[in-house]
Amino acid sequence: MLGHIARRFGHQMSNGLKGMNLPHVLTKETHRHLQSPFQTICPVSMMSLWPFSGKPQDFSQPNSSWSPEMVRLYEHYNALCDAENENGEKKRGPWRKLPSYDRTIKYATGGIHLSKLVQAKARLFTRCIEEEGAAFEYVTFLNKVEKTCVCVFQAGHLLEGAPGHLHGGAIATMIDTVTGTLAGYLSGPVMTAYLNTNYRSPVPLGSVLLIHCALDRIEGKKIFVNCKVTSSDESKLHTEAAALFVSINIGPLFGTRS
Amino acid sequence: MLGHIARRFGHQMSNGLKGMNLPHVLTKETHRHLQSPFQTICPVSMMSLWPFSGKPQDFSQPNSSWSPEMVRLYEHYNALCDAENENGEKKRGPWRKLPSYDRTIKYATGGIHLSKLVQAKARLFTRCIEEEGAAFEYVTFLNKVEKTCVCVFQAGHLLEGAPGHLHGGAIATMIDTVTGTLAGYLSGPVMTAYLNTNYRSPVPLGSVLLIHCALDRIEGKKIFVNCKVTSSDESKLHTEAAALFVSINIGPLFGTRS
Repeated sequence: MLGHIARRFGHQMSNGLKGMNLPHVLTKETHRHLQSPFQTICPVSMMSLWPFSGKPQDFSQPNSSWSPEMVRLYEHYNALCDAENENGEKKRGPWRKLPSYDRTIKYATGGIHLSKLVQAKARLFTRCIEEEGAAFEYVTFLNKVEKTCVCVFQAGHLLEGAPGHLHGGAIATMIDTVTGTLAGYLSGPVMTAYLNTNYRSPVPLGSVLLIHCALDRIEGKKIFVNCKVTSSDESKLHTEAAALFVSINIGPLFGTRS
Repeated sequence: MLGHIARRFGHQMSNGLKGMNLPHVLTKETHRHLQSPFQTICPVSMMSLWPFSGKPQDFSQPNSSWSPEMVRLYEHYNALCDAENENGEKKRGPWRKLPSYDRTIKYATGGIHLSKLVQAKARLFTRCIEEEGAAFEYVTFLNKVEKTCVCVFQAGHLLEGAPGHLHGGAIATMIDTVTGTLAGYLSGPVMTAYLNTNYRSPVPLGSVLLIHCALDRIEGKKIFVNCKVTSSDESKLHTEAAALFVSINIGPLFGTRS
């Protein structure tokens, strides 16, 4: 659970969720994405408290570890992010590439459990290994019209379960991440309530996979999402999953008082 | 799926599963544990093909990153591994501490997907980060009489989902690992068929958790295991899960011809 608030939070803020009571220290990525709306809420200087310099790194950009198949799929979905109108002019297409950072908001609750050092060193689980290609290489595209998401995922050599094959927990991690991203984009901050995963066939390490997620239904605060993990040509089904997310008030997570 | 064959395989071999058709190159840990039975099967010299030196490292031994609570629980269960008979002599207790290595068998199938370099560099997902305390610190104890397992798990700062909290995928990874370990010890090599995870309350990073697993039932090749993840004093339920594992013939996984 709670694997998704991070990335979604930044996007949702830039999509208009500007009225929340936020803590006064943000990470580089949320700072960057929320700079304008945030500064209207909180007048303190963030730069002096901000331990990073430069632009936040989007880890879902191509790098030298990406296989030709990974690059091909990235370019395929990236091309769908632009479309042409009847005059041949470029306009925004139905798909949108989502950036991916290595953390979200720092100095949230958990202080009684975490030293400041640990808080400062924390990293998003799927982006915690710096070596390119070693663990989770992935890029996610969102189609808000169809209420679907697709993630192109290359499974690195540090994600091993059985010899030469992807660990079931690594697959569950990616499913939790991508289904949660979709739920969060559609309904605001959410937490995973359940994740039911059916493993159909093992995945060799180094494989490029497609993780397709689609909204099933929304019932009040409940968002039901389904997911299929297939080979890159979609001919082989590796995993199926169903997830339930629940919309939450994120204030308490970020240390605000209700 | 397939997250468990590795560790179990070594143990099962040393428990007497000696007749299997194995590949001719083993990792340091399986080599070490299976040396005697293996050499009766395959006469080739393994040392010349074995890229490691020294003893395999058991990563479930206490280190300086372990919190006092983690050490306390480790010592509690470790003490249950020894018992005294009526004469006050020490004998083997009902519990057994399981060692945990960073890989299993090398050069399995997957060659069409993996370069030799990637194969050589692969690491078990839960042991892929070398920095002590940064990711998964855990030790598992097995009670074969009761058909239960308990894992003491300390959640490191690189396993973050929402700010300051454990990623749902990291919890699923540990559940898959520990339930699979139990299933494998009871029934031989298995693969995860499904893993249904219900998240009840978020886990702050740095927490020490208990992962209790128990055999539900065995139906032919199907092994049903249930699991509860609680706070270290067992007062708070964080996650519940049910898993189904299926016994497999591991020959094809290790590149042997049927």
